[in-house]
Amino acid sequence: MKHEKNPNSGVLLTLPSWLEEILAGKDLVFPDPSERMRWVIGLSRQNVEHGSGGPFAAAIFNSGSGKLLAAGVNRVEPLNCSPAHAEVMAIAFAQQDLQAWDLGKDSGNPAELLSSSQPCLMCLGATLWSGVTRLVFGATAADVTAILGFDEGPLPAAWIQELQKRGIAVEAGLLRAEAVAVLGLYTKKQGTIYNSRKGF
Amino acid sequence: MKHEKNPNSGVLLTLPSWLEEILAGKDLVFPDPSERMRWVIGLSRQNVEHGSGGPFAAAIFNSGSGKLLAAGVNRVEPLNCSPAHAEVMAIAFAQQDLQAWDLGKDSGNPAELLSSSQPCLMCLGATLWSGVTRLVFGATAADVTAILGFDEGPLPAAWIQELQKRGIAVEAGLLRAEAVAVLGLYTKKQGTIYNSRKGF
Repeated sequence: MKHEKNPNSGVLLTLPSWLEEILAGKDLVFPDPSERMRWVIGLSRQNVEHGSGGPFAAAIFNSGSGKLLAAGVNRVEPLNCSPAHAEVMAIAFAQQDLQAWDLGKDSGNPAELLSSSQPCLMCLGATLWSGVTRLVFGATAADVTAILGFDEGPLPAAWIQELQKRGIAVEAGLLRAEAVAVLGLYTKKQGTIYNSRKGF
Repeated sequence: MKHEKNPNSGVLLTLPSWLEEILAGKDLVFPDPSERMRWVIGLSRQNVEHGSGGPFAAAIFNSGSGKLLAAGVNRVEPLNCSPAHAEVMAIAFAQQDLQAWDLGKDSGNPAELLSSSQPCLMCLGATLWSGVTRLVFGATAADVTAILGFDEGPLPAAWIQELQKRGIAVEAGLLRAEAVAVLGLYTKKQGTIYNSRKGF
């Protein structure tokens, strides 16, 4: 299959410059799974502090070693792109780096997605097709809706089992209180709540 | 909110060159809703014939006039990007053109999403957050699974009502037989079926 190169047109998904600086030229490795999540929640906080998107961050790690493969933050507003949720960004950057649309293609090196908050309906689907074999999140969908009023969409009943059926393990609520604190910070800063069906 | 420009890094979502040529410099207007769908299904066919992605196309139209706002085709394999489904591509291009993450922000000019096949779980979520007020599709999820073996994900029960609750009308099965024929063509050409949790 041919890959048409067209550097001058297209939709360019970018990370904020502060995050590019964090990632530049370094191998970041987090052997401790909690430290992975603490780092991801830190990105969500920085995204709020820098005003570079919504209060959400995500990252893809090698499940075994804890090596960071890619990170993403919510970029809906600055990029004018409603699909640019943190999870979609992290998945797209990881797949570009690995030149693979399936992050699970090397079964000896399973990849996991960490997200500061539970994925919305879109990101739940994006997780399914990404090839990760593990999903870990901090704040729950109920937290996101209660604190921010964000709609997470009509999540299917038994969604954890639906992921498990497809070979994806789920860990909910890791460092939940720390993740929830960032949602509260966004509320204090009066960030946009964009359930876009309601318009601005 | 600042928009960091960084033209040299990021994930670039591109359309195939044959589609860029179709779109270049022209205003395309389809007053008849069936003609909109016929054109979209034609794109899905061309995407198979050109080997430039999976057998799916989508487009955003102004619901009233039928003016095309943006088109997309499935680009998962050529871009190494599992989120690059046709609907996500069309939404991202339309939002970039309008410089708005909410395609419904001008309530006097409602936008609609046409897709050659029923959206998967991810694209159902992407539809919710896009700001469109109408979703029309050809082939059903059952067609996609029966003919291709693609997993559409655990679609929530009563998903049509869930969209309606959020102000999005749904029309299912428009020109379904024509859309289904393209799925069959993809099968004959032995295109990749990428339920990526299963790996290659």
